[in-house]
Amino acid sequence: MNKASTGFYFEDFTLGQVLEHAIPRTITEADTSLYLALTGSRFSLYCNQEFAQQLGYSKQPVDNFLLFQIAFGKTVNDISLNAVANLGYAEVEFIEPVFVGDTISVVSEVIGLKENSNGKTGIVYVHSKAVNQEGYQVLSWKRWVMVNKRLEGMQNTFAVEPQLNSMVPIGSISIPEQLSITSYDSRISGENYRLNDYKEGEWIDHIDGLTIDNTEHTMATKLYQNNAKVHFNHHHMALGKHQQRLVYGGHIISLCRTISHNGLANAQWLAAINGGVHLNPSFAGDTIYAATQVLQCQELGSGVGALRLRTLGYKNSSWHELKPHYEKAHEEKSRLPSSFVLDLDYTVLIPV
Amino acid sequence: MNKASTGFYFEDFTLGQVLEHAIPRTITEADTSLYLALTGSRFSLYCNQEFAQQLGYSKQPVDNFLLFQIAFGKTVNDISLNAVANLGYAEVEFIEPVFVGDTISVVSEVIGLKENSNGKTGIVYVHSKAVNQEGYQVLSWKRWVMVNKRLEGMQNTFAVEPQLNSMVPIGSISIPEQLSITSYDSRISGENYRLNDYKEGEWIDHIDGLTIDNTEHTMATKLYQNNAKVHFNHHHMALGKHQQRLVYGGHIISLCRTISHNGLANAQWLAAINGGVHLNPSFAGDTIYAATQVLQCQELGSGVGALRLRTLGYKNSSWHELKPHYEKAHEEKSRLPSSFVLDLDYTVLIPV
Amino acid sequence: MNKASTGFYFEDFTLGQVLEHAIPRTITEADTSLYLALTGSRFSLYCNQEFAQQLGYSKQPVDNFLLFQIAFGKTVNDISLNAVANLGYAEVEFIEPVFVGDTISVVSEVIGLKENSNGKTGIVYVHSKAVNQEGYQVLSWKRWVMVNKRLEGMQNTFAVEPQLNSMVPIGSISIPEQLSITSYDSRISGENYRLNDYKEGEWIDHIDGLTIDNTEHTMATKLYQNNAKVHFNHHHMALGKHQQRLVYGGHIISLCRTISHNGLANAQWLAAINGGVHLNPSFAGDTIYAATQVLQCQELGSGVGALRLRTLGYKNSSWHELKPHYEKAHEEKSRLPSSFVLDLDYTVLIPV
Repeated sequence: MNKASTGFYFEDFTLGQVLEHAIPRTITEADTSLYLALTGSRFSLYCNQEFAQQLGYSKQPVDNFLLFQIAFGKTVNDISLNAVANLGYAEVEFIEPVFVGDTISVVSEVIGLKENSNGKTGIVYVHSKAVNQEGYQVLSWKRWVMVNKRLEGMQNTFAVEPQLNSMVPIGSISIPEQLSITSYDSRISGENYRLNDYKEGEWIDHIDGLTIDNTEHTMATKLYQNNAKVHFNHHHMALGKHQQRLVYGGHIISLCRTISHNGLANAQWLAAINGGVHLNPSFAGDTIYAATQVLQCQELGSGVGALRLRTLGYKNSSWHELKPHYEKAHEEKSRLPSSFVLDLDYTVLIPV
Repeated sequence: MNKASTGFYFEDFTLGQVLEHAIPRTITEADTSLYLALTGSRFSLYCNQEFAQQLGYSKQPVDNFLLFQIAFGKTVNDISLNAVANLGYAEVEFIEPVFVGDTISVVSEVIGLKENSNGKTGIVYVHSKAVNQEGYQVLSWKRWVMVNKRLEGMQNTFAVEPQLNSMVPIGSISIPEQLSITSYDSRISGENYRLNDYKEGEWIDHIDGLTIDNTEHTMATKLYQNNAKVHFNHHHMALGKHQQRLVYGGHIISLCRTISHNGLANAQWLAAINGGVHLNPSFAGDTIYAATQVLQCQELGSGVGALRLRTLGYKNSSWHELKPHYEKAHEEKSRLPSSFVLDLDYTVLIPV
Repeated sequence: MNKASTGFYFEDFTLGQVLEHAIPRTITEADTSLYLALTGSRFSLYCNQEFAQQLGYSKQPVDNFLLFQIAFGKTVNDISLNAVANLGYAEVEFIEPVFVGDTISVVSEVIGLKENSNGKTGIVYVHSKAVNQEGYQVLSWKRWVMVNKRLEGMQNTFAVEPQLNSMVPIGSISIPEQLSITSYDSRISGENYRLNDYKEGEWIDHIDGLTIDNTEHTMATKLYQNNAKVHFNHHHMALGKHQQRLVYGGHIISLCRTISHNGLANAQWLAAINGGVHLNPSFAGDTIYAATQVLQCQELGSGVGALRLRTLGYKNSSWHELKPHYEKAHEEKSRLPSSFVLDLDYTVLIPV
């Protein structure tokens, strides 16, 4: 028997199954510099030691977007090696800050299973938890993913779909214990806008576009040790529908976050992802843009506020062109056009 | 009003205006490894701790070429986001060595303004200074850049053009305090040539060519947090004259420096850039070459010498083919052919 | 005379000649993260500090595959700048573990010379040794390389071909002194297979494919400061037989190692390369696959075993398609088809 694994198929998952993901990872300072070089991130908290110290951290924390990518990467070999599509995320909670030198382990539990009526695929729902080397939980999230079956045909198993909250309640947001916002310096972060400058319903067109290249997206995905075949194997993907490698959806999230710096430079800390959907695939050569709607603004005390945001990622187009299409689709609850690649609902901390 | 900024236009600059650039950056060891991986640099001072210690440094200093890229990157959002072209540099002085862990902040003052007669653009001259986290000035430079106007038409402002020195006088070169050249080991650096082996007027054909790829130049530019649109947005650039992204001129400088190692391996320390001009744009797929003329050789004392060099960067050609064109243009003071991309006049320290 | 070197030609080598390679290199943590991002390596020993400590190391050691690339890179400027082809490796012994912060110097001795009958090239055999900053030998290897002559024609020198062992005897394998296998945790490494699960003669089809991109292979090669022209200069290579840059063979070795994780996740420590041949060149766009045959399984004591493996790297094909061709060629001792790119015979340590 071949010792190399072809990964799990839909039939291999059972409700309540616990998967201890292999290859826990020690995060290095180099990972954070590589993240910056691969995404172009310019949020000051992650690239300026003095600024991090002014905000009460002993040193720069790891960007929660990077933490999410690394933790997510750990789950791929067991959950989504044979995935057709990552369908969505929910209840993504960042609980404790992570620092360079921390080692992250991830465990997932299967919390839902549902066959698709085509008999070829099914949906697997998992709840994943990342802990650091001291056993503290640093991140918890749920995701659901469409996975191929090994054998075609309905098994007639009963479907279990978990109840997922549409958001992480702002009341249960973790504010990093050490965070002190009293000496926040907007000259360093690059913008003056604070919590009360944002209005619910307001849109921000982030203007800037970033073109994806092949080495860039594969290198980012390899940095996260995410080994899903669709990102790396052109020989195989050339035979499929898209005729080329797909860009890892998490890289699109990171690019949209980088682009959103223009207008959200003080929204330094990712506290939660309430929900996220990859609307369409992206490919090398695509130029990614983003626009954000402010969904909610709330003071949390001690000078810290929370902004709930909805960032739409789209490609090879302008917000000017796409906004009417978005509004029509939103009103009619219809599908967004294929230029849209990401719909991310998340909560960030920002000074009041 | 959209909270994202479209950057400054010519009309937004005033003489004497001071711009405190946001997002000061802590330089990491990883930045130095990434610089090496992105440029191929082989100068021993920056990749060999024992060699650096033999030269009197407590640890490897940051390569001044990398320092320049990072410091320059800080100024882009305020000065050259809407630049048509970086026209030139002058009086670039490296004052103090910078080490891993140092945080670099940059402030610029507008020292000149001049409308162009087409009514569409103007030239902005700035004097920028980089300081470390202890407030010591580490780098000072002047540059001028052609910036778009927000509205077409002449404003009839009076032009102010600063007097720029054609070189940093060798007498005002900063020799790093800790530098001790007594135990310089040429077996480590890779060549035997020292100050007195070079003759004024001598040319070095550096032979080697480096081909630029898309991820390489965009990743380098993102590492420097330089967010000028022309390097990153293919969707936008495809509509313009070049139909593709431009390579950041600073990356061309770094590639020429790497190439110049062959013949200048002991010219480890960049002390000053006397003047620099990007002659033509470069694109992914171009192969960069370099040739250097020795302009001046001078002993500075304590075994340290200064070489003033003129490095010409060119692409997709050989020095054999181009030298006659260079000589003709030099004699006639006419424009160099479009294969030439860089004309850099700089001063390096070298053992006597 | 031009100060830039064109490198050594066949005529420049003499038997017994000792070459002290320039630019010794201090290995940084960032080099290890970059290696991971450029190859996708998922071996736990190199990315998990706690796991490394459980195995008795004070901290993660440097992956011997990375060490080999860096040490090899040091020799290129003196030995293979004008190489036509890297013909093979033998007797590659990893003697002491290397850690971040160590500085690696390399010395080579010419141990064989042989003119080719075409009068255009010759074969140079070298024995190279890498030592750390304390003078301890960490790596020793032999390789032979086909080098261009400066002038065409036979010199009629007598040929000296060294005796090379077909393998590093398992009895002379260095087990790292600190290595303690007693608390080896397969949940961390990702697979349960240990020494006794492997059978001599057994094949593993590693399944996964990795597509090479231009920035990826050039960046890896620049990270190793390997400056062989064939990898970097498209302008020059476009005129040659392949009309494009060649991928550094060492990068192919690293990709095959990454791919072999699937089925060999516990074979963490590279102890020796018995022999290696690059069968055909690879180019950007190629998708690399690997299959491994287990040649020998042997207990070494203290819970440590050695696996002698033969990994075949191939491209743009499947093991299913290629295995019959391999078997036919193996039986007939004929040349493998051009899909095969690497034949690597090496010995790894694995828990019993």
